Amino acid sequence: MSLLIAVAGWNSLPWVERLSSRLPGHTVRSYPDDLGDLSEIRYALAWKPEAGLLARCPNLEVIFSLGAGVDHLLAQPDLPAAPLVRVVDPDLTARMSEWVALQVLLHHRQQLTYLAQQKARLWKSLDQPAARRVRVGILGLGVLGTDAARVLATLGFEVAGWARSRKTLDGIACFAGSDELDTFLGRTDILVNLLPLTPDTRHLIDHALLSKLARDGALGGPVFINAGRGGSQVEADLVRALTDGTLTGASLDVFETEPLSPDSPLWGLENVVVTPHVAADSDPETISDYIAAQIAAHERGEKLENVVDRTVGY
Amino acid sequence: MSLLIAVAGWNSLPWVERLSSRLPGHTVRSYPDDLGDLSEIRYALAWKPEAGLLARCPNLEVIFSLGAGVDHLLAQPDLPAAPLVRVVDPDLTARMSEWVALQVLLHHRQQLTYLAQQKARLWKSLDQPAARRVRVGILGLGVLGTDAARVLATLGFEVAGWARSRKTLDGIACFAGSDELDTFLGRTDILVNLLPLTPDTRHLIDHALLSKLARDGALGGPVFINAGRGGSQVEADLVRALTDGTLTGASLDVFETEPLSPDSPLWGLENVVVTPHVAADSDPETISDYIAAQIAAHERGEKLENVVDRTVGY
Repeated sequence: MSLLIAVAGWNSLPWVERLSSRLPGHTVRSYPDDLGDLSEIRYALAWKPEAGLLARCPNLEVIFSLGAGVDHLLAQPDLPAAPLVRVVDPDLTARMSEWVALQVLLHHRQQLTYLAQQKARLWKSLDQPAARRVRVGILGLGVLGTDAARVLATLGFEVAGWARSRKTLDGIACFAGSDELDTFLGRTDILVNLLPLTPDTRHLIDHALLSKLARDGALGGPVFINAGRGGSQVEADLVRALTDGTLTGASLDVFETEPLSPDSPLWGLENVVVTPHVAADSDPETISDYIAAQIAAHERGEKLENVVDRTVGY
Repeated sequence: MSLLIAVAGWNSLPWVERLSSRLPGHTVRSYPDDLGDLSEIRYALAWKPEAGLLARCPNLEVIFSLGAGVDHLLAQPDLPAAPLVRVVDPDLTARMSEWVALQVLLHHRQQLTYLAQQKARLWKSLDQPAARRVRVGILGLGVLGTDAARVLATLGFEVAGWARSRKTLDGIACFAGSDELDTFLGRTDILVNLLPLTPDTRHLIDHALLSKLARDGALGGPVFINAGRGGSQVEADLVRALTDGTLTGASLDVFETEPLSPDSPLWGLENVVVTPHVAADSDPETISDYIAAQIAAHERGEKLENVVDRTVGY
């Protein structure tokens, strides 16, 4: 049986080597130079594959997305109907929580101001609320949002979360559905987006939404942190919100178009952190283990894990 | 009975108000203008008090230090023998862990490099180990060190601690005494100092000690973080270590002399964060509650909490 590595913009060779060593009974093919007979392909490992490529594999049994998000695949109109599996990887989850905790603490503890003061050799303390007086709100309570909530609660923040459907998490106030979104936003000083990109969440975070964040908080104004998908934010609105005082700060790892254009004003705005989509890099070794284990389970007749529900998009 | 607020360099008035409202049966005096009859003073609340002042209070029953550290009091040769109580305050502890977690994450996630890249509008990802591959070592396992260890372990770091005497903490490798210090340093990528300042710890952190940190770690070189006391570090050695590659980064909240002189090279060294002794500001309201509760307990004949052992200095 054959397996196809279909990654656009990445070097597929290391992936071919990793999967070949883990799945000795399979032939590993790769895009674009070693496709072989596409009718032999049973499994595809894909990251932003060429349009139409997967549709040309008539016997696909499983499509694996090489990352937590699957929006890059669901955007393809002719994506085959085979089960689509997303990566759920403790390593990726932990890295995401590291980045989220760093950015929340960085704004909370006014580190950018302290760095500016350091540059001026200025010894000056700033008023500092304790974390328990700062309300973090997490958009998205999947595996990533749940772990980030746990870590931020350990750090002492008052954490709440919002998801499309009702969740129950120990010690975390959980809001659900569009009816409760405004209440959630109104109690939030630091908004963290960890939602998947779906038709419902595309451009969800616009000026109107940001205007609903708490303005009476201990931080002096709301902060927005995006480690989910850039397509969930309206960047022109972000720039406006950061300029007109609707937001006092932001940390952005994802953007509507990546790489972020050198012309974007986001690079240079005060109290904004821009990182180049590195919040949670996938560890290729861990992901290869995960995919090989899923293929082995599938061939033993067991159920696949983390199959995407295409009706909701994650 | 009288209580004396003896703070040098602070405005004592807010402290007088807070303590008066909490201890209605007591007369609250304050340095320097309202000392009254010093023989009536039963309790002193002190922060860097004038030399000799407390020695002139013959009937002192308790001395409260208005902070976690008591080195500022023990340095006075004529400090009265009354029990010396240090502040142990969950608010102060939580703030300290916030700062330590922020600084550890900031170095771990190469945030200063990303900020420099952002300034150059450069979209470029850096190799990033996961936290579980990074070994944090905490010097000092008192209340502050123990809480920082817990928070850093939640973030996924491989945490160990060192203390003068043997401690036992869940999931944290604990090293003890001078015999085990080198082994502890040799497994440490990020060294966090939370030791009290005592004759044993003064100038403990010098070039020789920093040279013993792990050089084979995932971070590419060791990092030093000091949120304890500046007197524990030899700053000339720190500068040398940061310049000759013994250290690849540092975050310093405390210094041998504070405020840090504008002439110190530490302000301008690459990959060094300087903050103005703000890691864990005491919350005056919380501390006032704590002291008032201790005085009330003492007057009911109960035991004082967190009395300093003067033979070890904390």
